[in-house]
Amino acid sequence: MNNFFQSHKSIRKYKSDPVSDSLLDEILLSGTRASTTGNMQVYSIIVNRDPAIKEKLWEVHFRQNMVLEAPVHLTFCADFNRFNIWCRLRKADPGYNNFLSFFTAAIDALLVSQNVCLAAEEKGLGICYLGTATYNAERIIEILNLPQGVVPVAAIVMGYSDEEPGITHRLPLESVVHYEKYKEFTPELINEIYRERESSDQTKELLRINEKETLAQIYTDKRYTRKDNEYFSVKFLEAIKKQGF
Amino acid sequence: MNNFFQSHKSIRKYKSDPVSDSLLDEILLSGTRASTTGNMQVYSIIVNRDPAIKEKLWEVHFRQNMVLEAPVHLTFCADFNRFNIWCRLRKADPGYNNFLSFFTAAIDALLVSQNVCLAAEEKGLGICYLGTATYNAERIIEILNLPQGVVPVAAIVMGYSDEEPGITHRLPLESVVHYEKYKEFTPELINEIYRERESSDQTKELLRINEKETLAQIYTDKRYTRKDNEYFSVKFLEAIKKQGF
Repeated sequence: MNNFFQSHKSIRKYKSDPVSDSLLDEILLSGTRASTTGNMQVYSIIVNRDPAIKEKLWEVHFRQNMVLEAPVHLTFCADFNRFNIWCRLRKADPGYNNFLSFFTAAIDALLVSQNVCLAAEEKGLGICYLGTATYNAERIIEILNLPQGVVPVAAIVMGYSDEEPGITHRLPLESVVHYEKYKEFTPELINEIYRERESSDQTKELLRINEKETLAQIYTDKRYTRKDNEYFSVKFLEAIKKQGF
Repeated sequence: MNNFFQSHKSIRKYKSDPVSDSLLDEILLSGTRASTTGNMQVYSIIVNRDPAIKEKLWEVHFRQNMVLEAPVHLTFCADFNRFNIWCRLRKADPGYNNFLSFFTAAIDALLVSQNVCLAAEEKGLGICYLGTATYNAERIIEILNLPQGVVPVAAIVMGYSDEEPGITHRLPLESVVHYEKYKEFTPELINEIYRERESSDQTKELLRINEKETLAQIYTDKRYTRKDNEYFSVKFLEAIKKQGF
């Protein structure tokens, strides 16, 4: 754990200190150096610092208070709008109103977002992803005036940390890495991989609070339920189509 | 351009020197420290070094020779398989066979991929994304034996560089960053943003070779055509559904 890339901690409490324009610009510039499909740069980043707009975003992001408290909120969007306008002004017919193009643009946006997060952390700032950007995409589209060809795919808050959380537990490397071909997960391997997490004090406390028998049930019954996933799947697909993909 | 995050260059020519197991492990471990939705880690990384399997992947990735030449090939997958197995072994009913869950897992995989790339570059290695992972997802699924719940979303090659390319031109920051609300792109702004790229010697040479009037036409008529995008959209959506999302 001695290397920068292994020291990430999501920050959920922020000081009110602003992030200077010059620092933010340098971090965003680092974002633009990420790999991008065919150098098209089919993404955009919306910067929000205005408290009135942040309050609207706070509603959308399930009222997580860090949206109000952190000085900077960034929304990363799959974006073919600028590219399409350029094509039309250059006697070229853009064929990017389809799912593959949406996904290509989403990849661009997500690689940029991770570059921005790491560049911010390297400058001493804290960040936290908001998993809710895809849940209420259509509301974010309204609030930020996103035109056709633009769909939000990730959002983060950024600022100076006001907490010192420990590093989050991750599963052992063998849980996520496969060599040459995908390996089978036997019950024995699953037990081994999840043993440390399932036997931790933190998990025991979560089971008690949630009145559940297993940690997996907290995910399936409370945090990421079938009903919510199905509801937000329909909404997100509708938003992608409505934006012209 | 004095900071690490602004120095990325995609590498397309590689030395045959292998990447050691310990170095690769450290880089992959850096990948696992990326943010992940609810700490579910719903992604996987398939490592390919075997020449026979790399030759199959080379076919899939439009016969780009760097797939054969670079010692390491990594495929990043949206992956609910391990999580679903865990849930079923723990008396929990996983509701993750839907589009939102696929996209959530794709986000996880893409943030990990970018962490891996930056960690590799920080160790002196070169990387290049293969934009073709989504085009032939169903063939990659066959080659790597990916089970239900697993879809490839990105692939990279990695190794020691055998070239020294210059840094790639990027559009000015204002092209991709918007403040508070999405700004309108007037023809004047588009002209300004694209002027440097369109007037470069590299672009002039591309226009000559491709016998096109504008750079945009090279994208729409040659590199990323409507016909290809529509064809691969259908194929990729079929692969996502076939894998159980």
